[in-house]
Amino acid sequence: MDDGTVYDICVVGGGPAGLSAAVNAHVRRKKVIVFGGRTGRPKVNLSPKVDNYLGFPGISGNELYEKFNRHVEEFKIPVVHQKIQNIGPLDGTFTLLSRDGSLYRGKCVILATGVTAHNLLAGEEKLVGRGVSYCATCDGPLYQNKTVTVIDYTGEGAEETNFLAEFCRKVYYLGMAGPAVEFIKDNVEVILNDRPVEISGDDTVTALKTRNRTLETDGIFIYRETYPPGEIIPGLEVEEGYIKVNRRMETGMPGVYAAGDCTGKPHQVAKSVGEGQTAALNAVAYLDSLELSGPSKP
Amino acid sequence: MDDGTVYDICVVGGGPAGLSAAVNAHVRRKKVIVFGGRTGRPKVNLSPKVDNYLGFPGISGNELYEKFNRHVEEFKIPVVHQKIQNIGPLDGTFTLLSRDGSLYRGKCVILATGVTAHNLLAGEEKLVGRGVSYCATCDGPLYQNKTVTVIDYTGEGAEETNFLAEFCRKVYYLGMAGPAVEFIKDNVEVILNDRPVEISGDDTVTALKTRNRTLETDGIFIYRETYPPGEIIPGLEVEEGYIKVNRRMETGMPGVYAAGDCTGKPHQVAKSVGEGQTAALNAVAYLDSLELSGPSKP
Repeated sequence: MDDGTVYDICVVGGGPAGLSAAVNAHVRRKKVIVFGGRTGRPKVNLSPKVDNYLGFPGISGNELYEKFNRHVEEFKIPVVHQKIQNIGPLDGTFTLLSRDGSLYRGKCVILATGVTAHNLLAGEEKLVGRGVSYCATCDGPLYQNKTVTVIDYTGEGAEETNFLAEFCRKVYYLGMAGPAVEFIKDNVEVILNDRPVEISGDDTVTALKTRNRTLETDGIFIYRETYPPGEIIPGLEVEEGYIKVNRRMETGMPGVYAAGDCTGKPHQVAKSVGEGQTAALNAVAYLDSLELSGPSKP
Repeated sequence: MDDGTVYDICVVGGGPAGLSAAVNAHVRRKKVIVFGGRTGRPKVNLSPKVDNYLGFPGISGNELYEKFNRHVEEFKIPVVHQKIQNIGPLDGTFTLLSRDGSLYRGKCVILATGVTAHNLLAGEEKLVGRGVSYCATCDGPLYQNKTVTVIDYTGEGAEETNFLAEFCRKVYYLGMAGPAVEFIKDNVEVILNDRPVEISGDDTVTALKTRNRTLETDGIFIYRETYPPGEIIPGLEVEEGYIKVNRRMETGMPGVYAAGDCTGKPHQVAKSVGEGQTAALNAVAYLDSLELSGPSKP
């Protein structure tokens, strides 16, 4: 799906940084869209009491996040409850691919993807793109008639498993997110009450070691709340595990900004909200500086 | 006055950045004091409507600033309604001199001094410390039996003028802040309905040109809402008119942080609040890393 709309600013992530970026872009009359939002369960939502968002002592994280979402709703900013899997430059704009296979286009991107609560697995970083993937929609077709493993920390891996089972020979489903799930096809082996430990392989993935066993596998699809920074846009500069930005929240790529937890510590609401604002206002200045010709809709 | 108290963190400035720093330092159980506060009239106070502080669309600047101040009051954080004139290192701590001559001591300093709404005068930067001063308490005594000029944008220069008139030969008082003021001594010449234009002098100040006349003067004391960044701590690195900081809000000086408008654009509430938080939490980490020996009170 690509309805041809070109957004001024695509905000990837619906936590405090992303929503702040969206609100600020909207106030400056830019066409903005947010990917993430309520379903993303950002960490603020889990705090029983937030005492350091200036002006609102003692508010619960849940109440504060509700206010953040209502702010965005009041401004009628579109929020798509889909995770963006991949972002690529195309004809002077960026193309964003969501997990359900939809395409979106924007002139600027603000990454507010948060931090993952789970550490990378041993061997994971080395084998990204060589058997390790975060997107069955993108990379699944490479594993026709092969064996793959889905590591699912969020529950969203279940749907991906059904998709993979259609053309893979076998799919191991390692469910870390809680209740058992059922799958359509019987080439899925469900593994619960276990943990992934290490991904092995020299050139490409050959096996996943779990606490209890070793699975021979050609590919591994991992579903976490957030992606490792840098995975979402190839070539993005990462420093000590965070997306590298300057004081203007610019990444090294023109038109790509980042804000919030994915840019570094402290992982706090006010810091994220402030960075979202700074990213948005600098993106607005960047857009204003572009002398784009041609209509934004075909 | 110096009652011997050594604060963990001294926050200079009572706008959104300063108050956010104070709240965050307090939450992390540090002994914090704020200089500025309600009397400082930060810009947020003047906005009829703030639409981009996430969670609170449509709030008036005045109401938001009231909430900020109430947050600080609820935490019983001491706020001193005095401007800090000068900060110097002393025995591993910092000594802060306020405009009324009081001394305060702190292990860390967070500068949240805002931006001045008034441009520097022609010649001002060149002659700072060579006739141009921002502090009669500090530098006034150098002008015994000389002629000085007070440029007063805020009203606070009136009191300073009375002080200077006690020992200077003559004091020109150029009042830019509104209503006429009366002075105790008759060696004060009040000039209203005029504007300063240029400060001249080769080695040291010799004259102030105003729109209507030229005043021969040995010293010029300027009172604005805020100081030019860098004036408050000798040697502080300034870049394009702003205090230079990294992403941790560290200045080049150990123990000295900056946040908010004084560090650069955008001049916005959420950006300031976020930076105040980042500065405070990094100051807390710095304090925790110090292996200070000795009691914090004598």
